[in-house]
Amino acid sequence: MTDTPAWMSPKGRPWQRANAQRVFENHWISVTTYDAVAPTGRPAHYGLVHMKSRAIGVLPIFEDGRVLLVGQHRFTFSKYSWEIPEGGGRFDEAPEDAARRELKEEAGLEAAQLIPAMQFDLSNSVTDEHGFGYIAIGLTETQDAPDDTEDLALARVPFREALDLATGGAITDMITVAMLLRAYHMAREGGLPRLLADAMMECAISPTDQGARSR
Amino acid sequence: MTDTPAWMSPKGRPWQRANAQRVFENHWISVTTYDAVAPTGRPAHYGLVHMKSRAIGVLPIFEDGRVLLVGQHRFTFSKYSWEIPEGGGRFDEAPEDAARRELKEEAGLEAAQLIPAMQFDLSNSVTDEHGFGYIAIGLTETQDAPDDTEDLALARVPFREALDLATGGAITDMITVAMLLRAYHMAREGGLPRLLADAMMECAISPTDQGARSR
Repeated sequence: MTDTPAWMSPKGRPWQRANAQRVFENHWISVTTYDAVAPTGRPAHYGLVHMKSRAIGVLPIFEDGRVLLVGQHRFTFSKYSWEIPEGGGRFDEAPEDAARRELKEEAGLEAAQLIPAMQFDLSNSVTDEHGFGYIAIGLTETQDAPDDTEDLALARVPFREALDLATGGAITDMITVAMLLRAYHMAREGGLPRLLADAMMECAISPTDQGARSR
Repeated sequence: MTDTPAWMSPKGRPWQRANAQRVFENHWISVTTYDAVAPTGRPAHYGLVHMKSRAIGVLPIFEDGRVLLVGQHRFTFSKYSWEIPEGGGRFDEAPEDAARRELKEEAGLEAAQLIPAMQFDLSNSVTDEHGFGYIAIGLTETQDAPDDTEDLALARVPFREALDLATGGAITDMITVAMLLRAYHMAREGGLPRLLADAMMECAISPTDQGARSR
């Protein structure tokens, strides 16, 4: 992690918690209420959504500068969503191992190299979901093994096209938006192999829809 | 929104929901369970965390290329977090209005211009939280009016320093990480005024901690 400058040191009092009450639990989350005291001293009642896994996102970039996206129906928004391969990582496994598993299960790919690209707190007003993002390069196809609740479509898309869709509002999954922007930043700042960065930046928008296939 | 290419059209069947049961509710969220059917046809039990407001993030960029960050204790992670001004937007108000309110309440700033920068689904496996990000420019100081559960510190930081902290793992709030990367992208691609972009890219890391103040 980057050294933190002095101005980042914590100010004031932290939140205080008491009277934890578990009000809901399933396989993926638990919800607990607390009688809390805010840093200002004001009493508050807080409901915390605890996530039982880490969020893992992997952006696969091929040598020709295209990226792999996964299409699926999302229960939470009742909509179809194009995203990078994502999934849950157990707290007792290395995030890299979870990333390699999701890359294989969702995209049918193995990577010669996983480049750590970001860590993030997804929604810190209500949940404690923490996650890790990786860029996968040196890709080879393998046997895919999708989860039996997942009906996934795959598309190989020029990097610039995916980035334009994310910044234009057609791709809205936050991990995907942030990881495409991070890949742009790394390509520009020397964080990716030069030939790959050149391919990502030069790759034109495909005039056909050959990138998509269902499975 | 960007025109969506043909390959993005939905494939397969959507999720089906039945037997909605409200299991928890407070001022900010509700939790509802469903008997669902996955796109593969497999039955599933789903717990959905509904957010009662939109997530709004505003990145204020001063003419000299510095950005304003807000420091606060976060209940959800029991840690201190530096972030851009953020808050909840009601569904019955324009996201821009919520952004201007948060900018004023948290940062004590008014903006001549709010530039729409991104839309995002924050955590789409369990929650339906949708949000909007803006870049605020043409800034002037106003009277701040912080929420009485908020004890905020403010820091004006060179853009490059904030970006390095976000990509290096010292700033982890996802809206902040993504918005700093988006600002980099816009500065590089002509999406911000030229003089401002130059100031952001040239701004050196400050050798002192003069940027921070408490209130």
